[in-house]
Amino acid sequence: MLVVTTIKELQQALSPYLSDNQTIGFVPTMGALHAGHQSLFSVARDHHDVVVVSIFVNPLQFGPGEDYETYPRQQALDEQVARESGCDVLFCPTVGEMYPDGFPQVVHVKQGADVMCGRSRPGHFDGVATVVLKLFSVVQPNEAFFGEKDAQQLAIIKQLVKEFFLPITVTGCPTVREEDGLARSSRNVYLTAEERRYAPLLYKALQKAQASGKRDPSILVADVKATLASIPVGEIDYVEAYEYPSLKKVNEANALIIVAFAYQFKKARLIDHIVMDFNNRGETPCSEQ
Amino acid sequence: MLVVTTIKELQQALSPYLSDNQTIGFVPTMGALHAGHQSLFSVARDHHDVVVVSIFVNPLQFGPGEDYETYPRQQALDEQVARESGCDVLFCPTVGEMYPDGFPQVVHVKQGADVMCGRSRPGHFDGVATVVLKLFSVVQPNEAFFGEKDAQQLAIIKQLVKEFFLPITVTGCPTVREEDGLARSSRNVYLTAEERRYAPLLYKALQKAQASGKRDPSILVADVKATLASIPVGEIDYVEAYEYPSLKKVNEANALIIVAFAYQFKKARLIDHIVMDFNNRGETPCSEQ
Repeated sequence: MLVVTTIKELQQALSPYLSDNQTIGFVPTMGALHAGHQSLFSVARDHHDVVVVSIFVNPLQFGPGEDYETYPRQQALDEQVARESGCDVLFCPTVGEMYPDGFPQVVHVKQGADVMCGRSRPGHFDGVATVVLKLFSVVQPNEAFFGEKDAQQLAIIKQLVKEFFLPITVTGCPTVREEDGLARSSRNVYLTAEERRYAPLLYKALQKAQASGKRDPSILVADVKATLASIPVGEIDYVEAYEYPSLKKVNEANALIIVAFAYQFKKARLIDHIVMDFNNRGETPCSEQ
Repeated sequence: MLVVTTIKELQQALSPYLSDNQTIGFVPTMGALHAGHQSLFSVARDHHDVVVVSIFVNPLQFGPGEDYETYPRQQALDEQVARESGCDVLFCPTVGEMYPDGFPQVVHVKQGADVMCGRSRPGHFDGVATVVLKLFSVVQPNEAFFGEKDAQQLAIIKQLVKEFFLPITVTGCPTVREEDGLARSSRNVYLTAEERRYAPLLYKALQKAQASGKRDPSILVADVKATLASIPVGEIDYVEAYEYPSLKKVNEANALIIVAFAYQFKKARLIDHIVMDFNNRGETPCSEQ
């Protein structure tokens, strides 16, 4: 596995593959790699000649007071994980490499960013879309892989690719969970021992709402809120339900519905969701069990 | 010359050139083609195997109350001009083709868009950058040509290409003028006979300021304002001076300085500028004489 830090090195590394018409699978990450990332590397490995992984903690997607400075960084360990996962090229640019002139022009997400995490984190998805567009431009992958866990991010990146006519397939991969149901996240390391004991209730709240067979989004939201409110540590950031992937108000009975939340523990703000297909007797379409 | 209206047709038309490693020169326009555009076609023709021209009156770069509806449209005539200029492919998409989902995500220009035309036309350069990024994505040119007349636009598009790491050279070409000095513009057709008689004073105002040998931007601006104020029809929108191409406040003696204005006649809002190289005894570096 080749580790590169500049765009020039990256493009030199990829150039022989491109001229040989080999396909590139790309997994952009912020590092602190875990089993969720590894599942993306594995799918990319299965489908492409070359697997490119990027590790870049993107300052533009963190707001004031968020955890940009303390976001877990573990370069040596991440390199080992990427290597053992069969990645070919690991791209670890500096902030100056990705933003040589600061932020003179950005992608502004006008639709789908005013709800859920977009409301809690103003500008977050502008930062995500901007850096993903830059990374797509330098890597020029055939296919890019993202976790379904970040459902709003996935919807916005699919829209980004459609909007700017990028010749890239964006593929979402199922959320990887701990045995007790907690979604894998780089931020789980922030949890205290006590918080970790309660954390499985996050996903249980969603499962319980889904199992109720109820179909009214506001009732589903209320049910999830009721379960989350029983956790004695931390607090609810939001619980919301929308059509997916439009992230618009639910207005048809036969639609995909996302019920999603963010929950703020002392240091870790965790998100999770379920997508329900009301056209399909409440079963989930996205392998999220 | 092939005339296409969909992205699919465009890409089918370009595909054989691409697989043959031929180079693409691209001139994006809003139609109402005149000698200024023809000079761009000619440079593109001289330097590339394939010349692609687009005609698209981009709704996103017009504000409320601006002339989107009445902007001159003359498809048949434009086709003839493009054909006679040796263009190979003319791309004339509909609004629905370029914006299939409306404007869910746009490029937001945060630097260089708060002055000059950007201040008079809020959101204008977001619209320009967004459509140019889309057009670059579907055409994938090696080089794109823009008139230096739209100096702020040119600076912002050069920044766009740098910012999103696009493998495209952006080339500015000198302003083409009428014999009396009036810069060629699609909006000149809006001028009344009386306005047209006074219009040469626009460029004369710039020439006079330049010839004065003065180097203080605020004095140059005042001189241009004084000349423009002598025109008995229409009114000054702005006269401003900045470093070019940064469009930041002038803070070094040895810098390129742009002195630019917009002048509002009854229907036609016209712009013009000069760039002065204070490092080079006041001569212009951009062939704008």
